[in-house]
Amino acid sequence: MSVIYDKVALIGLGLIAGSMAHAMREGGLAGHITGFARSPETRDTARQIGLCDQVFDSAAEAVAGADLVVLAVPVGAMGDVMAQIAPHLAPGATITDVGSVKQSVIAAVAPHVPPGVHFIPGHPLAGTEHSGPRSGFASLFRNRWWLLTPLPDADADAVARLDRLITAMGAKTDRMEAAHHDLVLAVTSHAPHLIAYTMVGVADHLRRVTDEEVIQYSAAGFRDFTRIAASDPTMWRDVFLHNREATLDILGRFTEELFVLQRAIRMGDGQQLHDYFTRTRAIRRGIIEAGQDTEAPDFGRSPGARPPE
Amino acid sequence: MSVIYDKVALIGLGLIAGSMAHAMREGGLAGHITGFARSPETRDTARQIGLCDQVFDSAAEAVAGADLVVLAVPVGAMGDVMAQIAPHLAPGATITDVGSVKQSVIAAVAPHVPPGVHFIPGHPLAGTEHSGPRSGFASLFRNRWWLLTPLPDADADAVARLDRLITAMGAKTDRMEAAHHDLVLAVTSHAPHLIAYTMVGVADHLRRVTDEEVIQYSAAGFRDFTRIAASDPTMWRDVFLHNREATLDILGRFTEELFVLQRAIRMGDGQQLHDYFTRTRAIRRGIIEAGQDTEAPDFGRSPGARPPE
Ligand SMILES: NC(=O)c1ccc[n+]([C@@H]2O[C@H](COP(=O)([O-])OP(=O)(O)OC[C@H]3O[C@@H](n4cnc5c(N)ncnc54)[C@H](OP(=O)(O)O)[C@@H]3O)[C@@H](O)[C@H]2O)c1
Ligand SMILES: NC(=O)c1ccc[n+]([C@@H]2O[C@H](COP(=O)([O-])OP(=O)(O)OC[C@H]3O[C@@H](n4cnc5c(N)ncnc54)[C@H](OP(=O)(O)O)[C@@H]3O)[C@@H](O)[C@H]2O)c1
Repeated sequence: MSVIYDKVALIGLGLIAGSMAHAMREGGLAGHITGFARSPETRDTARQIGLCDQVFDSAAEAVAGADLVVLAVPVGAMGDVMAQIAPHLAPGATITDVGSVKQSVIAAVAPHVPPGVHFIPGHPLAGTEHSGPRSGFASLFRNRWWLLTPLPDADADAVARLDRLITAMGAKTDRMEAAHHDLVLAVTSHAPHLIAYTMVGVADHLRRVTDEEVIQYSAAGFRDFTRIAASDPTMWRDVFLHNREATLDILGRFTEELFVLQRAIRMGDGQQLHDYFTRTRAIRRGIIEAGQDTEAPDFGRSPGARPPE
Repeated sequence: MSVIYDKVALIGLGLIAGSMAHAMREGGLAGHITGFARSPETRDTARQIGLCDQVFDSAAEAVAGADLVVLAVPVGAMGDVMAQIAPHLAPGATITDVGSVKQSVIAAVAPHVPPGVHFIPGHPLAGTEHSGPRSGFASLFRNRWWLLTPLPDADADAVARLDRLITAMGAKTDRMEAAHHDLVLAVTSHAPHLIAYTMVGVADHLRRVTDEEVIQYSAAGFRDFTRIAASDPTMWRDVFLHNREATLDILGRFTEELFVLQRAIRMGDGQQLHDYFTRTRAIRRGIIEAGQDTEAPDFGRSPGARPPE
C-alpha cells in the first residue's frame, strides 16, 4: 500500500490512537506519525515503545505541518484540545475525531475549526476493555465498522481521502447523520454499557452476602457483563454525559420493558416470557448473518467452548 | 481412566446431556449409556449421530438397571419426569439432575425418590447459547464449576462417586446449600439473562426506527447481550418461574441502582459516575484472578482482537 497522508498527528495516545499507529505502520499508510498525550507518563511510555515516530510535549508542536490530525481523547476533552491546536493547524489539513458520541463533539469542536481546515467527525466501532498507550494493536479495526458523520458542507475529496485511510486499516466505512448516530449507538452501546455497569454494581453489594461466590461462579452470564463494565471510567462518564438525551430515552424504554417481564415472572405468565425470549433469539440470528459475531458457542472461548465436529 | 458407573441413563438429550455423553465416552467413564428424550425427532437424531449406546422410546426403559440416572430436562419438567421413572429405578441407583435452579427441583423431585435410591441435586456452570441433541461437546465442562447441593441425609459414598464422575469429565466441584445456590445464581446468571433479554427486546422495537442499523452496528456492547439472549426460551422461562423470589429480589436491587445512575446522568454528576465505574472495574479484575475468564481483549474473538505482543 502507499502513503495516504504524509504526516499524521495523534492527539491522545490510548487504545484507539495506538491501534491507528500500529495499523498505519503495518500498511505504510503515513509518511510520519507524531503524537501527544496529556500526561508525561503516557508520553514517556509511548516514546519507550516507539508508538509514534515522534512524541511531543505539546499538542501544538505535534500538529505542526500535519495533513491529518486525529483527536483521540475522551469525548469531554475534545473541545479544549481543539481550541489548543486550532492556531497551529496547517492550511488544508484534515481533522477527524474518534469519539463515541458525535453531536456533542461536533458542537464542541466545529466552532474552533479555522477556515480551510476540514473537520470530518468519525467513530470506529471497535474497542476492547483495555486502555492506555500499550493497549493498541494493528488488527483492532479489521472488519469493523467506522462511521463517518461529515457535516453538510464537507469537502468531498477530503472525506474520500480519510475514507481511504480507514479502509486501508481494515475497517468498513459508512456515513450517517450525527443525531442518528447518537441514537443508534445509545441502543447498541451506551445503554448496554450502563446496564452492565449497574448489574456489576449490584453484584458488588451482594459480594458481602455471598462471600466471593459471585466472582467464583461468574461463568454463567455475569462474566460477560463484567467485561463490558471494565471499560475506562473516564471515557464512559463522558459518553453518558454527552449522549445524555438518547441514553436516558433508551434506559426509560428498557425499564418499562423490564417491568413487564418482572411482572410476568411474578404472575407466573410463562407464555409471555416464552414469546419474548423467542423473539429476542431472532435478533441474534440477524447479527450472525450480518457477520458481526462468531457463531462458535460462547464466543469461541476455550477451553470448554469447542463447537461440535 | 476407568469406568465409574456401569450404566448411565440420560433423561433429556440436549446440550448438557449430550456433552455428558461425549465427555463420558472420551474418558471411558461409563460402561453403557442409554438415553431418552421427549420427542421422536430428538430420539431419531440421537440415534442417527450415535449419541448414546441405546436410545429408548420411554424413560422407564432407559432407566432400567441404571446405576446413575441424570435428569437433563428443563427445570419445570423435572417433577413429571421423576414421577414417571420412579417405579423403574434400580435399588441403590443414584439420581442427579443438572437443573439451573435447585430448591424447586428438590421440591419437585425428592418426594418421588424411592427408599434406597440416592438423589443428589447438581448444576454444571457451563453452557452455550445452543441447545438440542447436536449441540453437545466433550469439553463443555472442562475447568468449569459443577455445584452439588446434596440433602442433609445424603449418602456420603454416593456423593463421592458422583463427584468422581464430574471431576473425571474435567469439571471442578463444590457443595452448597440449595437456597444459597439459588441466590448466587440469581446474581450471576438469572438476573443478567433477564436483563439481556430485555435490552435485546428494546432494540427490537427500535429496529424499525433505525432500519437494521441496530444489528449492523452491534459490535460495541449490544452483541454480547444478544448472545446471552439467544439461549433456549423454554429453559429460561422455567428458570425464572422456578427461581422467582431470588430473581425478583435481584431485579429490584438492579432497578434501584439503575435509577441512581440515570439520575446522575440527568444531573450531570460526572464524579458519581466515575466513582461507580471505577468500583466495577475491580470486580472484573477479581474474576480474571479467579481464573473464570480470559484476559485477552474482547474475549479473544478474532480477528480484530489479538492482544498486543
Ligand atoms: N475504547 C473504546 O472501546 C473506544 C471505541 C471507539 C471510540 N472510542 C473513543 O476514542 C476516544 C479515545 O478512547 P481510548 O479508548 O483510546 O482511550 P484511552 O486508551 O483511555 O486513551 C485516551 C487518551 O486521551 C488522553 N487524554 C485524556 N484526557 C485528555 C485531555 N483532557 N487532554 C488531552 N489528552 C487527554 C489520555 O492521556 P493520558 O494517558 O495522559 O491520560 C490518553 O492518551 C474516546 O473519545 C472514546 O470515546 C473508544
Ligand atoms: N444450556 C445451559 O446453558 C445450561 C447450563 C446449566 C444447566 N442447564 C440445565 O440443564 C437442563 C437441560 O438443559 P439443556 O441446555 O441441555 O437443554 P436442551 O438442549 O434444550 O435439551 C433439553 C432436553 O430435555 C427434553 N425435554 C424437554 N421437556 C421435556 C419433558 N417435559 N419431558 C421429557 N423431556 C423433556 C428435550 O427433549 P426434546 O428435544 O424432545 O424437546 C431435550 O432433549 C435444564 O434444566 C437447564 O436448566 C442448562
